[in-house]
Amino acid sequence: MLPQWVIEKKRDGGELDADEIGAFIKGYTVGDIPDYQMSALAMAIYFQGMSFDEVTTLTHAMLHSGDLVDTSSLTRPKADKHSTGGIGDKLSLLLAPLAACNGIDVPMISGRGLGITGGTLDKLESIPGYRCDLSEAEFLAVLHECGCSITGQTASLAPADKKLYALRDVTATVPSIPLIAASIMSKKLAEGTDVLVLDVKCGHGAFMKNLDDARELARTMVEIGHRMGKSMSALITDMNAPIGRTVGNALEIRETLAGLSGQGADDMMSLTYALTAEMMVLSDGKADPSEAKKRLVDDVTSGAALARFRQMVELHGGVSDIEAQLPVARIQTPVTASASGTVSAVDADKVGRAGIILGAGRTRVDDGVDHAVGIADLAAIGERCQAGDVLATIHANSKDACNEALQYVKDAYIISSKKIPPRPLIIETIKPGE
Amino acid sequence: MLPQWVIEKKRDGGELDADEIGAFIKGYTVGDIPDYQMSALAMAIYFQGMSFDEVTTLTHAMLHSGDLVDTSSLTRPKADKHSTGGIGDKLSLLLAPLAACNGIDVPMISGRGLGITGGTLDKLESIPGYRCDLSEAEFLAVLHECGCSITGQTASLAPADKKLYALRDVTATVPSIPLIAASIMSKKLAEGTDVLVLDVKCGHGAFMKNLDDARELARTMVEIGHRMGKSMSALITDMNAPIGRTVGNALEIRETLAGLSGQGADDMMSLTYALTAEMMVLSDGKADPSEAKKRLVDDVTSGAALARFRQMVELHGGVSDIEAQLPVARIQTPVTASASGTVSAVDADKVGRAGIILGAGRTRVDDGVDHAVGIADLAAIGERCQAGDVLATIHANSKDACNEALQYVKDAYIISSKKIPPRPLIIETIKPGE
Repeated sequence: MLPQWVIEKKRDGGELDADEIGAFIKGYTVGDIPDYQMSALAMAIYFQGMSFDEVTTLTHAMLHSGDLVDTSSLTRPKADKHSTGGIGDKLSLLLAPLAACNGIDVPMISGRGLGITGGTLDKLESIPGYRCDLSEAEFLAVLHECGCSITGQTASLAPADKKLYALRDVTATVPSIPLIAASIMSKKLAEGTDVLVLDVKCGHGAFMKNLDDARELARTMVEIGHRMGKSMSALITDMNAPIGRTVGNALEIRETLAGLSGQGADDMMSLTYALTAEMMVLSDGKADPSEAKKRLVDDVTSGAALARFRQMVELHGGVSDIEAQLPVARIQTPVTASASGTVSAVDADKVGRAGIILGAGRTRVDDGVDHAVGIADLAAIGERCQAGDVLATIHANSKDACNEALQYVKDAYIISSKKIPPRPLIIETIKPGE
Repeated sequence: MLPQWVIEKKRDGGELDADEIGAFIKGYTVGDIPDYQMSALAMAIYFQGMSFDEVTTLTHAMLHSGDLVDTSSLTRPKADKHSTGGIGDKLSLLLAPLAACNGIDVPMISGRGLGITGGTLDKLESIPGYRCDLSEAEFLAVLHECGCSITGQTASLAPADKKLYALRDVTATVPSIPLIAASIMSKKLAEGTDVLVLDVKCGHGAFMKNLDDARELARTMVEIGHRMGKSMSALITDMNAPIGRTVGNALEIRETLAGLSGQGADDMMSLTYALTAEMMVLSDGKADPSEAKKRLVDDVTSGAALARFRQMVELHGGVSDIEAQLPVARIQTPVTASASGTVSAVDADKVGRAGIILGAGRTRVDDGVDHAVGIADLAAIGERCQAGDVLATIHANSKDACNEALQYVKDAYIISSKKIPPRPLIIETIKPGE
């Protein structure tokens, strides 16, 4: 079988079999199949799509291109959540300690931000000392100790995906649902959990701009995980407005601490509770979702969740006086309302771009990030304001960036004289076979 | 402008402008744009196609990636013919000396065979001593001397096409009409002729199996040449049965000599006359096609065309006693008719495959060819035969290959009891703007 025959078959709309996909991915990983054949296949997949059988086989091949985390020594149910990426999305930081408080081990291998969406590792690294490069042994040790660990991908985890993702980025083959699904799932399945809950973001500030695409991606990933023996569900959630009140790495750590102390914004907390409850229900068939949510609120009220987060940070080498040691930007400038009324929209894409301009995110994989900068005190949809009221605060380390970002954030706000109906945060839930 | 933005634009069905195409091809030729971006773009072009503007720009960029032959010292009209490749297609060998006899210079840069279709250079190289690697100075000297020269492509001619063609071959991006058209035209336009007549083959034995594709390819190439200031026309010709009575390199040279001596098969001679007359008409607006054909018949009858061919061969270093020195295969075996009736079909694809099996053609670019082998005495459509009559003769250098090829040739023939209407050789003629 020549690689070009496989490309040709997919180009002509054929369904690739397990041998063809397996040999192609194996050949590509070891370098026998060159980048130029992989990129041609990726473009053919972009146009012709893949069946559930094909995308499951592709995920399997990419997953087994590297090592899987051996979680057999963990005796509690193992579950994780994955988000397709949003603006102000710090839900993993809240959810991991909450799930750990409820008898679940959360071996979370996370990523860095790219483009307007932030990355969990970048946020955690704003805590001085926090290590995202744990070895597998260290990762398991943290999990045994506190039930949750958030670390980065090691080189041996899904190397086919690492290589393919970099190639897709420069060959205009990123926005292909089967390729996105296989990329995400090959990494998440390597964690060795029993349960995986997906948070598929949909809206201006998300990769999936419309509900049809979000639904197709959610269904594809749920189906892949289900076929590979995992308990799966996906929540499609709104990403038209930022989540919570802050965007930016250290600022989002502060907001996480506030959330775990009972001071969290409503949208942020209800999404966190919904996703964590879903993990609990899938991990224990007898659990009741509303009962689970009650327990999560109790864990926040009692301080247990915050203590668990601090424990995880310290086990990762992070400082114990987090609040005091988080970096602070030199400039703080308010963004004020130009009219009186009710906030009817906060464009997540514009706020995300403001974050990039300030240096909170990266446009290229090898860019650095400024942990101190970002946007705080974001007024939420439905809040009433008077002209001149503060809608947000820009945290910047450069005057020029501050001015530019300020304009983006100002433009993100629409103030309306009408009453705004509450927006649904969770649009729908996708289960296997739906 | 990043290369991936250009790929993305084409992927999404956009029309690339001259800057985008120019920079991409230039970058690819010098190695700044890697193969994996070019193959992704080629696959996007496969799916989205190209407008006449785009394909003309692409051809221009590929043409100017290398050197053009400087034909300014040639004072007579300069014209060439290009065929998209057929079985038994030795028309260039007949046409070049005929056109030269009629006041036209024919600077023909030709190629080698690949797959079932033969290559003009392979045929000429069966003549001991014939050189296909003339320098530009030698090429021009031959043209000054005898008005026609058939040589191979130099490394500096359309290097972008050379690189892209090799890449398309291994990335399943060969069958794209804009890419085929740009590839052919970038090479033919580098010859510096004023006139180009295209012979677009259509049928079992051709790359274009159906008339719609043949028409689209013909229109695209005619339009490219027209926009670049050339006098163009394309004949779409039948390629369901082999042309003439032989397939194989030395065998086709023998048939060429026979044709130039007035002993040529009807189909071969009428296609030759039609294509050469088209070159004459386009080179001299006043020429009349039927008058031109009469002159061509006279040139054959008088021996002038044959003398011109021998002169060209000698100027290329070839022997003067061609017939005596052409290689001869060790085995000659007849293929006999299994029934009596009229030949109603000779499958060009099967005959072409028999040629490959015998070693007359190559399946990979770097294969060698056996000049002696092939198939001769092919009975033509419309001929009557009795069971046991010879339909063809296999010329082989191996018993196994002979037996296998014999079966293919036998299978190529359909003998019918019905009267067969004559097949049209020229299906249609495409002019600019049609």
